[in-house]
Amino acid sequence: MKIDILSLFPEMFEGFLHTSIIKRAIDKGVVEIEIHNFRDFALDKHKSVDDTPYGGGAGMVLKCQPLLDCLKTVTTKDSLVILMSPQGMTHTQRYAQELSLEKHLVIICGHYEGFDERIRDYVDVELSIGDYVLTGGELGSMVVADSVVRLLEGAIRESSHEDDSFSNDLLEYPQYTKPAEYEGSRVPDVLLSGHHENIRKWRLYQSLLKTKRKRPDLLEKHHFTDEEIEMMHEINKND
Amino acid sequence: MKIDILSLFPEMFEGFLHTSIIKRAIDKGVVEIEIHNFRDFALDKHKSVDDTPYGGGAGMVLKCQPLLDCLKTVTTKDSLVILMSPQGMTHTQRYAQELSLEKHLVIICGHYEGFDERIRDYVDVELSIGDYVLTGGELGSMVVADSVVRLLEGAIRESSHEDDSFSNDLLEYPQYTKPAEYEGSRVPDVLLSGHHENIRKWRLYQSLLKTKRKRPDLLEKHHFTDEEIEMMHEINKND
Repeated sequence: MKIDILSLFPEMFEGFLHTSIIKRAIDKGVVEIEIHNFRDFALDKHKSVDDTPYGGGAGMVLKCQPLLDCLKTVTTKDSLVILMSPQGMTHTQRYAQELSLEKHLVIICGHYEGFDERIRDYVDVELSIGDYVLTGGELGSMVVADSVVRLLEGAIRESSHEDDSFSNDLLEYPQYTKPAEYEGSRVPDVLLSGHHENIRKWRLYQSLLKTKRKRPDLLEKHHFTDEEIEMMHEINKND
Repeated sequence: MKIDILSLFPEMFEGFLHTSIIKRAIDKGVVEIEIHNFRDFALDKHKSVDDTPYGGGAGMVLKCQPLLDCLKTVTTKDSLVILMSPQGMTHTQRYAQELSLEKHLVIICGHYEGFDERIRDYVDVELSIGDYVLTGGELGSMVVADSVVRLLEGAIRESSHEDDSFSNDLLEYPQYTKPAEYEGSRVPDVLLSGHHENIRKWRLYQSLLKTKRKRPDLLEKHHFTDEEIEMMHEINKND
């Protein structure tokens, strides 16, 4: 996969590109990520990328020309052009899975107050990472890239995905590691028992219980197995 | 405000801390942000922070000791301790506003598979930035910090908040800047008219229309003025 990111603050991506799973995925050739500063495409001597809004109002608005000229140099027929925007559809794990099947993602990050509305005509998808306002689209573009790259074959060990929260609409079960007791708090006995079937059942039960308590909305989308239906009966009786 | 962030990858924050509004807020003394690597608190010679899960399974689990020893050095009675976690409550603009009233935020970022469940006992709030899985909590912590810092007095010009998407449960109206025509697409005449009241009405109408089309769920939370109710009647008739 190739990911091109258009931003006025390329330096914000340094740490992201050189750390952990993203760095490893780049080093292994699983993904290529390039950051483009669309200020380089501004035509005036001040390299200006924004201007005051028509009709008045506070702040500045990103102009069409520098951003779209930059966009035209990176897009091909295989590109999916994403605009990071608080007005976009909200990103989800399912959408990350869809995006992981694309060949080429182009992600546009705004900054300042907003975009000239006409920029939206050159975009395939407007995407938001959540219902909060950020300084710019940079963090959002990293969130989207991170969520997608870790799903690409070879980025992380395959088995690591299976128990991810959201991957099956359930929250992950509680995890414990050594020591068996920390400041008076002990690991549940079943996990120390070595009885694999009991451990599997306990984890599934805890996963359902956690999801019911913390994110009941996720259960509405979940496809229950017969075993899970039985466990939910028990949970609803006891909780 | 003081924000302490606990992470195994302090280098991921470099670009974030040295760019744009966050940098300016730090330089102006509006916020102090410190990154702590809790690996420094590991006691063994390999500086290990994680171990295999009790009960078996793929991946590694963050241990209690290094993380919690680090946490204890930064918390005071004024601290709100936040754990970035896909199981947390979903971050929103309203919650960012609440957090902006705190004196001291401590944000814990996990990495790898997960945390020892007992770490949750030392945490005030579990927070997620959305329903997708990320490599670690680092990007999430930056998203939360960014959404909060920009609300602090002195971080950005006050008037810049007023028209933010979500700040009044409506998406922002379309913005345009020069030129009046770009590749055949023209700025709406009303914005060139100089008629302030007409511009205000057009923007409010467009804001309601956009929200209805893209995020009707936001309208359910919105407190409508009489003028907005009238506009919604018109929108529902025409759209």
